[in-house]
Amino acid sequence: MKATKFFLKTEKEIPADADSINASFLIRAGYIQKTMAGVYSYLPLGLKIIRKIEDIVRQEMNKIGGQEILMPVLAPKENWQKTGRFESLDILYKLQTADKKDLVLNPTHEEVIVPLVKSMITSYKNLPLYLYQIQDKFRNEPRAKSGLLRGREFLMKDMYSFHLTQEDLDDYYEKVSDAYKKIFSRLGIGDKTVLTHAAGGSFSKYSHEFQTISETGEDTIFLCDKCQVAINKEIIVEQNNCPKCGNEKLVEKKAIEVGNIFKLGTKYSAPFDFRVSDAGGKLVEIIMGCYGLGITRTFGAITEVFFDQEKSKIIWPESVAPFAIEIISLNKNEEAEKVYESLRARSIDSGRGNPEDEVFYDDRDISAGEKFADADLIGAPIRIIISEKSLTAGGVEISRNSKTEIVELAKVADLL
Amino acid sequence: MKATKFFLKTEKEIPADADSINASFLIRAGYIQKTMAGVYSYLPLGLKIIRKIEDIVRQEMNKIGGQEILMPVLAPKENWQKTGRFESLDILYKLQTADKKDLVLNPTHEEVIVPLVKSMITSYKNLPLYLYQIQDKFRNEPRAKSGLLRGREFLMKDMYSFHLTQEDLDDYYEKVSDAYKKIFSRLGIGDKTVLTHAAGGSFSKYSHEFQTISETGEDTIFLCDKCQVAINKEIIVEQNNCPKCGNEKLVEKKAIEVGNIFKLGTKYSAPFDFRVSDAGGKLVEIIMGCYGLGITRTFGAITEVFFDQEKSKIIWPESVAPFAIEIISLNKNEEAEKVYESLRARSIDSGRGNPEDEVFYDDRDISAGEKFADADLIGAPIRIIISEKSLTAGGVEISRNSKTEIVELAKVADLL
Repeated sequence: MKATKFFLKTEKEIPADADSINASFLIRAGYIQKTMAGVYSYLPLGLKIIRKIEDIVRQEMNKIGGQEILMPVLAPKENWQKTGRFESLDILYKLQTADKKDLVLNPTHEEVIVPLVKSMITSYKNLPLYLYQIQDKFRNEPRAKSGLLRGREFLMKDMYSFHLTQEDLDDYYEKVSDAYKKIFSRLGIGDKTVLTHAAGGSFSKYSHEFQTISETGEDTIFLCDKCQVAINKEIIVEQNNCPKCGNEKLVEKKAIEVGNIFKLGTKYSAPFDFRVSDAGGKLVEIIMGCYGLGITRTFGAITEVFFDQEKSKIIWPESVAPFAIEIISLNKNEEAEKVYESLRARSIDSGRGNPEDEVFYDDRDISAGEKFADADLIGAPIRIIISEKSLTAGGVEISRNSKTEIVELAKVADLL
Repeated sequence: MKATKFFLKTEKEIPADADSINASFLIRAGYIQKTMAGVYSYLPLGLKIIRKIEDIVRQEMNKIGGQEILMPVLAPKENWQKTGRFESLDILYKLQTADKKDLVLNPTHEEVIVPLVKSMITSYKNLPLYLYQIQDKFRNEPRAKSGLLRGREFLMKDMYSFHLTQEDLDDYYEKVSDAYKKIFSRLGIGDKTVLTHAAGGSFSKYSHEFQTISETGEDTIFLCDKCQVAINKEIIVEQNNCPKCGNEKLVEKKAIEVGNIFKLGTKYSAPFDFRVSDAGGKLVEIIMGCYGLGITRTFGAITEVFFDQEKSKIIWPESVAPFAIEIISLNKNEEAEKVYESLRARSIDSGRGNPEDEVFYDDRDISAGEKFADADLIGAPIRIIISEKSLTAGGVEISRNSKTEIVELAKVADLL
């Protein structure tokens, strides 16, 4: 992708009303724009990152048998009355149809998926079943804040599992937990994201959160340095040592909740009287689990982790970078154009998909300083500089993983 | 994908409250489920089709310079008051935040994209600009009906173009029109979908719709059989002959509006006072175009066109089929398993992406009649039957494009 063809507009100034590192950086660098408090538009740079996060999440959900569906934003009041949450959940957005029927903007989808699955399966033979979606969610937050970390409208992956027995749920719960670890590791925040014990419910002692350690997080957790397992502050009174090794010297940390998994038991199947016949023909209750992962919130968390405030720059993890490579030409456009074309051709040949997603070439007629400033905001993991100096030294200057080397022009395409 | 691993549930009976061919078929065959009137959930079969439609639309939009963004479902009242549509548009869903601010669920995004682009560009150098998204849209319809054809919540691709001059808009408008023709052709409904002249506005004599001819359509158009160009009934009084050849013998047809393109002029840029400086430094108004294409409505239209009511079966166009190939084993599971694995392996080798998307193998322990009945609902363009009879004849029986032939087991993988 050439910069002159790309919808990019960076700002020197931090927007006046940005309330967090992720929002101030992402708005300034042209990834997102604020439509209203807690509601954002995603520009091409930001949407590329979201799609890459989604794809990684999708791959790992599919690997553990998840099947993707898409449920609606709207749901009728009746579904939410069945579980009592129409009255009890204060963050529900409510509205009416033209013929005065009450609707809800779903903040989560138990109330939609339970009747959906109930109408489709009747036998133990159809279980277990794992369904997930990536869909907009809505929370009528009194105070939206922290940019993508606490929005009124946000993208989430939510999976729901349906089981005949508690043992089957317990097994699958561990599989999802492992899949989440893989996801956060692939997203570049594996070493900062810890399994955190949180309040359970009637059906299990704990639920579990995936908390990304960050000074800007809203949550407080207590971390066992030995096991890399944590406890959410909300249950520290009941559980004041490491549930794994008993260590009582826990370290207080701020963190961002990027995922949570929960054993629901029959909490949502019972109100809908969702039962199936077992092998003996007897009707048995359905046991459920639910597994959330905030797509846009994870985007915000990755930003908080990788943005270098001192240098006011970012280098994205390779797995989510909007562009793998950026080419900067210092008055050597002819050579730069050749490098760009060879990288694009290699990208197509190697079946890596759309080369527009791989290589960004800043072909604009602006100063070197402006190009470098923007490159610090675009954050490609590999940077190629073509200048009089690099050509004299034998080729182009390539920076990657904090290392810089000179590579011959003819060998640049091997980078991909 | 094996049937035993797939979330599939077909119904023998047509659902009682289905109000159209597409809804009754798609619900019965397990593609979609109705969450409430005009609001559907998409099950794995249906979502696969939607993703394939989206990808084709995306490719053609990118080819004409479109850049993908994602705008929110929610917008503040103020944006909609600027254009007067907060009061005038009766299908707007309205709701309130916790602190009593009025919001809208966007049925279209002019009111969001104009201030967005205005805040990012100031010069003629940034024009023209073409931005699109694929996003949920909402209409507070008094009577939702016709399944996916007139919903309260639906997926749309909407593109907005920004120009300095009317000539530039006129040129681009033709490009989009050509791209739409390619899209509908790739989706298998090109021969049924006609460019239709409809009411314009202050800035152009006509707008244009893409109407898919179907007896179940809500719209009435008058078609010139010579030019394959039509006129919407709403303007037939002013324009009663073919705008292309003057033919006065027009044929009345029912049709489904799957896309529309519109020259907006300054209708939405003016209320936001969106102007940029031209080459001479003078502030000039922005000229806009908008280009809609209903993703879920097109899904419905394809269903209406390809569903064979007499035989109660469908064969999807290859480009959108949830599975390219279905394998049916008649008591020959060992051979069927081998064919399935060879097709999967070939699918991976040829880089065609996820083989789960290509091959459906009905490995269920049910009768041949039930397998064939379900195969008629899944509608794979290629059907492979493995039976005693086919093996005696020398291999497997392959049906494709209404032709049936026997192919050796070893050569089946060449199908992909």
